[in-house]
Amino acid sequence: MNKIPVMEIFGPTIQGEGMVMGRKSMFVRTAGCDYKCSWCDSAFTWDGSEKEKVRMMTPMEVFQELKALGGNNFDHVTITGGNPALIGDAMKEFIELLHQSAIEVGLETQGSKWQDWFYLVNDLTISPKPPSSGMNPNLELLDDIIFKLRDFKSNFSLKIVVFDDEDFDYAKMLNNRYKESSIPFFLSVGNSNPGEDGDISGRLLDSLDWLWGKVLGGPEMNNVRPLPQLHALVWSNKRGV
Amino acid sequence: MNKIPVMEIFGPTIQGEGMVMGRKSMFVRTAGCDYKCSWCDSAFTWDGSEKEKVRMMTPMEVFQELKALGGNNFDHVTITGGNPALIGDAMKEFIELLHQSAIEVGLETQGSKWQDWFYLVNDLTISPKPPSSGMNPNLELLDDIIFKLRDFKSNFSLKIVVFDDEDFDYAKMLNNRYKESSIPFFLSVGNSNPGEDGDISGRLLDSLDWLWGKVLGGPEMNNVRPLPQLHALVWSNKRGV
Ligand code: SF4
Ligand code: SF4
Repeated sequence: MNKIPVMEIFGPTIQGEGMVMGRKSMFVRTAGCDYKCSWCDSAFTWDGSEKEKVRMMTPMEVFQELKALGGNNFDHVTITGGNPALIGDAMKEFIELLHQSAIEVGLETQGSKWQDWFYLVNDLTISPKPPSSGMNPNLELLDDIIFKLRDFKSNFSLKIVVFDDEDFDYAKMLNNRYKESSIPFFLSVGNSNPGEDGDISGRLLDSLDWLWGKVLGGPEMNNVRPLPQLHALVWSNKRGV
Repeated sequence: MNKIPVMEIFGPTIQGEGMVMGRKSMFVRTAGCDYKCSWCDSAFTWDGSEKEKVRMMTPMEVFQELKALGGNNFDHVTITGGNPALIGDAMKEFIELLHQSAIEVGLETQGSKWQDWFYLVNDLTISPKPPSSGMNPNLELLDDIIFKLRDFKSNFSLKIVVFDDEDFDYAKMLNNRYKESSIPFFLSVGNSNPGEDGDISGRLLDSLDWLWGKVLGGPEMNNVRPLPQLHALVWSNKRGV
């Protein structure tokens, strides 16, 4: 029996980022990642610090826990990680199970690994990691993923987290690389201190102001959409909401 | 010669609301409105207080002023008002002029009047006014507009500003009315004091938190997307940015 390594299941809450910003959604966070980003805000999914919380669950068990938690108070599930693209057939089964109940599926992955079930995802975010992460994405592999999704006419977008000028230049490079393909392209302001307590909205809004200035500064990024993490603005750094 | 009554032209700036939130855009604000919303944040377009600023301009003149102001630092123009749907052929010509330069067009109107050029708009927001506005939209007329756009497969959305519980119930009624048609449906938090000076982000984030609570409170609004006015969060109540 195929199983999914589940780190946490929570919701309903509001999706605060990217292409379906504002969408009411349940969240399923898978364990395990092939990256180790310096600023990873969910390092607990892969650094072993919470490994006793990981549960190996069948797609039906995850579905049932979502229904027990959310009842009929949702029609969208966001799958995030870690990197959910590390999971094969079990994820395909899980997405099909949700679709059978008319529940839409959003998924975010860094674009380091392809899965055929990407085609089933209603809103798919490919989020290559910029230099500040310390990672160095394989761009040929990324091309392959992006062009497959484009040719299939998938509803997907690119999203780059931007912390600094170097990240912005990286996003610019990617935007030029894929501009011809007219793929929705989002920038997300990095949260430089995801552990900070208290109201962090002022700091995050200042960062967004900076990023807007960069985008407005020249024509190369005319088409990109710089956005905040809304949930961090409203709820600061709380986890599980 | 057909002319457009122009109140202000500004940008490039960031579209802070609705379906293309985050999009770099130039703004053209037309003069004149068939409504008088109690909380109208652009009453200067219709209450006579700035009528000496209104310029009757040809579509080419507006286009040239946009290019003089923004150069090639934009590929999207947002037309707002007042109610830009009061304008006929001149608006059609203007939109066609922008399209000839590969510039996309967003437009917002309350849905009180149809124009055939609605079909040309790349992202069209229909924003019926809720009870707190003091207005009472004609729903048969609104049906007609919504169903025409749906049948044409226009890229459009509904957006309702919500100030209070009564507005939320109104939005719920409209959501039920159009749910079958799967139209993207946004809620926008009302800014109860658009004249307030200083940093208003705390107050606006509290209002968004309230609205998220309403949406999360039950399944009737599962599909709607409650969002802030991002520009008001980042730049407070400044005009012309
Ligand atoms: S890819 Fe995502 S989950 Fe993995 S280390 Fe980077 S930020 Fe964390
Ligand atoms: S419809 Fe818009 S422009 Fe007209 S009065 Fe209402 S808020 Fe103001």
